[in-house]
Amino acid sequence: MVLNRFWAAIQEILTSIEKGFSSMEIGQVERFIEKLLESRDNMKKVVVVGAGRAGLVGKAFAMRLMHLGFNSYVVGETITPALKNGDLLIAVSGSGSTKIVVETAKAAKNVGAQVIAITSYPDSQLAQVADLVVRVPGRTKVSSKEDYFTRQILGLHEPLLPLGTQFETNCMIFFDAVIVELMGRLGITERELMERHANIE
Amino acid sequence: MVLNRFWAAIQEILTSIEKGFSSMEIGQVERFIEKLLESRDNMKKVVVVGAGRAGLVGKAFAMRLMHLGFNSYVVGETITPALKNGDLLIAVSGSGSTKIVVETAKAAKNVGAQVIAITSYPDSQLAQVADLVVRVPGRTKVSSKEDYFTRQILGLHEPLLPLGTQFETNCMIFFDAVIVELMGRLGITERELMERHANIE
Amino acid sequence: MVLNRFWAAIQEILTSIEKGFSSMEIGQVERFIEKLLESRDNMKKVVVVGAGRAGLVGKAFAMRLMHLGFNSYVVGETITPALKNGDLLIAVSGSGSTKIVVETAKAAKNVGAQVIAITSYPDSQLAQVADLVVRVPGRTKVSSKEDYFTRQILGLHEPLLPLGTQFETNCMIFFDAVIVELMGRLGITERELMERHANIE
Amino acid sequence: MVLNRFWAAIQEILTSIEKGFSSMEIGQVERFIEKLLESRDNMKKVVVVGAGRAGLVGKAFAMRLMHLGFNSYVVGETITPALKNGDLLIAVSGSGSTKIVVETAKAAKNVGAQVIAITSYPDSQLAQVADLVVRVPGRTKVSSKEDYFTRQILGLHEPLLPLGTQFETNCMIFFDAVIVELMGRLGITERELMERHANIE
Repeated sequence: MVLNRFWAAIQEILTSIEKGFSSMEIGQVERFIEKLLESRDNMKKVVVVGAGRAGLVGKAFAMRLMHLGFNSYVVGETITPALKNGDLLIAVSGSGSTKIVVETAKAAKNVGAQVIAITSYPDSQLAQVADLVVRVPGRTKVSSKEDYFTRQILGLHEPLLPLGTQFETNCMIFFDAVIVELMGRLGITERELMERHANIE
Repeated sequence: MVLNRFWAAIQEILTSIEKGFSSMEIGQVERFIEKLLESRDNMKKVVVVGAGRAGLVGKAFAMRLMHLGFNSYVVGETITPALKNGDLLIAVSGSGSTKIVVETAKAAKNVGAQVIAITSYPDSQLAQVADLVVRVPGRTKVSSKEDYFTRQILGLHEPLLPLGTQFETNCMIFFDAVIVELMGRLGITERELMERHANIE
Repeated sequence: MVLNRFWAAIQEILTSIEKGFSSMEIGQVERFIEKLLESRDNMKKVVVVGAGRAGLVGKAFAMRLMHLGFNSYVVGETITPALKNGDLLIAVSGSGSTKIVVETAKAAKNVGAQVIAITSYPDSQLAQVADLVVRVPGRTKVSSKEDYFTRQILGLHEPLLPLGTQFETNCMIFFDAVIVELMGRLGITERELMERHANIE
Repeated sequence: MVLNRFWAAIQEILTSIEKGFSSMEIGQVERFIEKLLESRDNMKKVVVVGAGRAGLVGKAFAMRLMHLGFNSYVVGETITPALKNGDLLIAVSGSGSTKIVVETAKAAKNVGAQVIAITSYPDSQLAQVADLVVRVPGRTKVSSKEDYFTRQILGLHEPLLPLGTQFETNCMIFFDAVIVELMGRLGITERELMERHANIE
């Protein structure tokens, strides 16, 4: 009774993770990991972009990539340099239609970078720009107010987890599992991560 | 065989979530939610602080609190004002010993704010400063290099999920479930969240 | 002899400030201040957007506005809410053609907000979107590589202060002088600023 | 008459710059530049830390250092790695007593990094930790409420430029002049800066 929505939410998140990952396309994950490893081998930059909470999840990934010795950056932070031919842009957007992310992806293509879309919508604008799409399941934020009101009028169920929550959680877990896979392939131990971990905060 | 560490990581995260939340103290969660609701009723500030990935998870929570009409802020961002008597500081640190977080918590106490520690260690420095401790399970980052090397010498198992990963994932899910509970108690629909959601990115 | 470029740069910055401000249009400054005061009176949001160093200068302004009791925000930070009808967007771009700033200004217009362009180019894309243009002098960054190379071919003088330096310095000083003027009109003392100044860092 | 505080502020800023720089110790500037050049030659990290507006000015400097090919970072941003023996921390604080900056400087010393204090107070806590102090003139924020009230009681003149404004402006100009000097010594042209300048925003 007490905190019943709290516990229902935990349950729904767990279900969303289990269902989500069972539907992931393994080939997309493999190619994503290969592209990351190539970037590291060739000392190329890996730059992450995302807005709002998806952007925060992208930052959490960029930080771990740095811990693994990648040349990683986040769009909009102070010392992010120019993207060049052969660099990698990882664009995170559940809907695949977040304007700033789509525009950044287009700009990245124009300078010869590769774009990887992390999105729930393989047909989205972002996906269309991308060299590789990795579909991470999630309801994602309803893309427009119009869609939302239509759904309300049709009496469709209001989901427990608001807006992009499912995508954001799945995305965070996805990225962390990619990190574990990279550690294995690169033979990197936790101790090496710790050596690169920020130490003066 | 392929991506076996990837899938093992997903499994370990799921197990960590299930085990973690089954051990949570429901009374702590209830008091946390009550303190949040009081802050909203009294138009007090709710300010979040955290370093690294724990800080990013804290930001994701602060953003949703804003969507719910809270007067929320993040320490270190541009327009975060002075903390005053009666405001709430939510301090996020798996180990409970992140220096910058502990110092900020002490400074918050000095100006009469309440401190809520979100941590895996109820005996940590942070917890000792706090008015309320909410234990969110996680291995948390090993607190010192010394501890880590001892563990290696003892031949203890190297965990699959590096550093604070478990805490950070559990924390993100915990905060999202708190948001769902708050939405229920406040009678706020997703549509209202969307009305406050950043709309010019 | 020693540090001669250092001292020449200081001199050029001083000259740039003196020349720059003597050419400012006083009517634009007055209207800018009036719009700011209206926003404060009507409890409207004042949201600042800018990229790179111009964005940092914009943040420095947003922080002082908060110290003065304005409802100020920065695009891209965690708790920045939706822009609404009647809110104010202050868009800072020397060239007036920074893509992300122009796009944000357009999006702000679409939701009924007013846009104030702070730029060196009154004919720029940004200026054309804006309700009010405040021209802050500066060489501004050369807008494209093509322009730059043309200039080099023509043997035009390479300026001492690189890229947007002049605009950024002038802009910082301009904003600080606006703050002083606002303090006078609002009868706000330094002590009140200090009361709102972040106090737990 | 109109905007008289605005123009008085501009004048006071200009005077503050002129007086400030005429009192700078040239030897400190020279050693600062030498330490920066050594860091670049030895591929060491240059990490900037500061709170509030001083922090924003520090970021503007870190960005230009990146444009010049330095290995520069900002404390608190996503991909800032561990500081190591021989790295450089540039700690920016007008008063030299900002807690977070002083603590970070101490932590940097503990890992064998060199600390350069950019401050108005050569006797401050920060200065005492530092390997090199560069005094940048400015009134700086009054260090405590007590001091402030004492001053008020004594009837001392309330300055036109609030809090740390003078220091922040002088600091921005100081850093930009250092960049110009570095460009000269390294033989770097504006075109090279532009090649590294963020290009997908």
